[in-house]
Amino acid sequence: MSESTRLEITAAEHAGRRARLAQRLQDEGLDAICVFGPVRVAYLTGFHFAATERPVGVVLSDTGEVTTLLPALEETHFAQQCPDLPAPLTYPEYPGGGTGRHPLSVLADHLRARFPAARRIAADHDGYENRWGYRGPALSALLGQPVHPGLELIDDLRMVKSAAEIELIREACRWGDHAHRVMQNSIAPGANELLVSHGASLQATRDMLAALGERYVPKSREGLPANAMFISGANTAHPHGLHQSVGVMAGDVLVTGAYGTVGGYESELERTMHVGDPTPEFERYFAAMLGAQNAGLAALRPGRTCAQVEADVRAFIEDQLGMTALVRHHTGHAFGLEGHEHPFLDLDDHTPVEPGMIFSIEPGLYVPGLAGFRHSDTVLVTETGSELLSVYPRELADLIIPA
Amino acid sequence: MSESTRLEITAAEHAGRRARLAQRLQDEGLDAICVFGPVRVAYLTGFHFAATERPVGVVLSDTGEVTTLLPALEETHFAQQCPDLPAPLTYPEYPGGGTGRHPLSVLADHLRARFPAARRIAADHDGYENRWGYRGPALSALLGQPVHPGLELIDDLRMVKSAAEIELIREACRWGDHAHRVMQNSIAPGANELLVSHGASLQATRDMLAALGERYVPKSREGLPANAMFISGANTAHPHGLHQSVGVMAGDVLVTGAYGTVGGYESELERTMHVGDPTPEFERYFAAMLGAQNAGLAALRPGRTCAQVEADVRAFIEDQLGMTALVRHHTGHAFGLEGHEHPFLDLDDHTPVEPGMIFSIEPGLYVPGLAGFRHSDTVLVTETGSELLSVYPRELADLIIPA
Repeated sequence: MSESTRLEITAAEHAGRRARLAQRLQDEGLDAICVFGPVRVAYLTGFHFAATERPVGVVLSDTGEVTTLLPALEETHFAQQCPDLPAPLTYPEYPGGGTGRHPLSVLADHLRARFPAARRIAADHDGYENRWGYRGPALSALLGQPVHPGLELIDDLRMVKSAAEIELIREACRWGDHAHRVMQNSIAPGANELLVSHGASLQATRDMLAALGERYVPKSREGLPANAMFISGANTAHPHGLHQSVGVMAGDVLVTGAYGTVGGYESELERTMHVGDPTPEFERYFAAMLGAQNAGLAALRPGRTCAQVEADVRAFIEDQLGMTALVRHHTGHAFGLEGHEHPFLDLDDHTPVEPGMIFSIEPGLYVPGLAGFRHSDTVLVTETGSELLSVYPRELADLIIPA
Repeated sequence: MSESTRLEITAAEHAGRRARLAQRLQDEGLDAICVFGPVRVAYLTGFHFAATERPVGVVLSDTGEVTTLLPALEETHFAQQCPDLPAPLTYPEYPGGGTGRHPLSVLADHLRARFPAARRIAADHDGYENRWGYRGPALSALLGQPVHPGLELIDDLRMVKSAAEIELIREACRWGDHAHRVMQNSIAPGANELLVSHGASLQATRDMLAALGERYVPKSREGLPANAMFISGANTAHPHGLHQSVGVMAGDVLVTGAYGTVGGYESELERTMHVGDPTPEFERYFAAMLGAQNAGLAALRPGRTCAQVEADVRAFIEDQLGMTALVRHHTGHAFGLEGHEHPFLDLDDHTPVEPGMIFSIEPGLYVPGLAGFRHSDTVLVTETGSELLSVYPRELADLIIPA
């Protein structure tokens, strides 16, 4: 199978990302950057791995030279995934494996040896991020010089998605939508949240793998690539409520979430649903929420800022609905390799909206003691407006579970 | 149902943890500590939540006073989970929700107002950890004073598990073992890794929920509480290999992983298996690996250090097997609320082994081009030695998939 038909980012695109970041280093007068965030490492190299207490990092110089720091146990895995990259700098084990040297010291020694005259080193984090019991020194302490904050240098590059990234997210939406459909078809009174959600996810994944065959390239050991879940009842009044153990009952409100993952990129889809005939009160809040989401979809276009999009939604909720008191969060967020990414559709985020950005649009209304009301969709910013990449029904009539 | 029969840590135990941490603050001459790590927040308060770009933090003073920083959307959820704790300090939204104030500024203002004379503030991280597009200032920059590194103050408390924690991990082992059994029974030639793994996890979860009923209290929106997975073939030669898409074949080596999650605590179980009759070469490496694991189990006891346990295993691998070149990682790690925790059974970790610690024992041998060989078990350190909490068969005869 040729590389181009596989549903993943090509080595050439990863190289282009590194070239753009190297250019930014030059623009900022930085000699090199150390990248520790696992998603950023994958973004720059295509190396997807299980992040643990063992540091993984990428050093990129302003001339585009790249070195990857790895624990020995990832060496063959890296060679398999990134055959185009130079041999990595490895260490035997965290915290030392008997060498008496902390992995970050191995990295610091490399930086000193390779860039002896370096005055300005940047990093997305001043040392490896604490994860799974990791303890270690700040990179700046090891280098004996300040480390320039470099997180935004990379993450700003991630805001506008490439054509290839958009295609992966579009494909992910297909399978998020499908998982949601399978789940909706499986929910009935008495259904257990966990079991029905995962049963549907499993069936949707079976369908996805059968349809995509070898075009689908796993990037993670965790989770399923077609996924759906829901929470029910009064729990939905908490925007991030946890599962409950009792089964779904007639009269319950459901708030769902579904996504696909393709080539490491995620989609987003959330729906507010009802078990059995909804009450007039439910219908009123549902219509209000749908109106707010429509206001968000209409507001998202190039030439505006994130804050302006949110201001339009807030104005609708205040002026048309008088429901500002029911708002618990802003309208949405960017995403891609991570489920939430910068920027945010928030009154305090003044990032300009640009074509190629991907946002969730998900204004929510939370009625204490009754339920939460929230749809979320995957929305691509186009040259002139926006396009819904998730195409699941949004109307109440299509979101009723018979009871 | 009374609190004591629910499979979770009680509010009284959470209060005891805070009292011990407050005592440590006094011992160190610290006025207060800010805790941002989501697992540490759960450890200190019992508040389990979906960690996002919206900062959550806990401030604990040396007198035991506790304040929780929350986004508005978590307020009702927090009140539900932590009814014994004071009302939280909330902010409307990240990055500001129209207030023009970053959430970390809200926290810094609280610290200044509540502890005006504070000279020594600690934190597990100097500001909220970057996660899902979060950007924000260092806490030390906002406070205009250094922040004392406080991660180890908390994580050292987590090393020795309480009786209640051990019981949760013991229960988690039961369901990790069960998930592995269901998976082993489901694997046959042609089986797809993802589908068989998740199908088995779903069935094991169904069994677990039926058996535990309301004693089981979900602590996460993600994943299943009884979980099993495997990778197969030459992929197993990478210690953290990713899934492959083709089905299992006769002659394949499988490396599995299974765990339960009960009250937020995990177990660990991994097995090396074979599809069809193993070759003499496979049998030889399998026996070597099992010998190394037995050496680790024998070496783990109070009065020794982590490094000494690892040294025994390394000596066995070198002296008895002559296979040091096949080692890619150390013998094991602590765990509990996280899949890996400090300390590590590593030559450079000199932490004393104490009763109540929980470790994985999992020395691995990786034969390039052939396979990886690794069992892992959940092992409790007792007063006089150790006890296997995972009790799944470890012998090759019990780990053959008929082909």
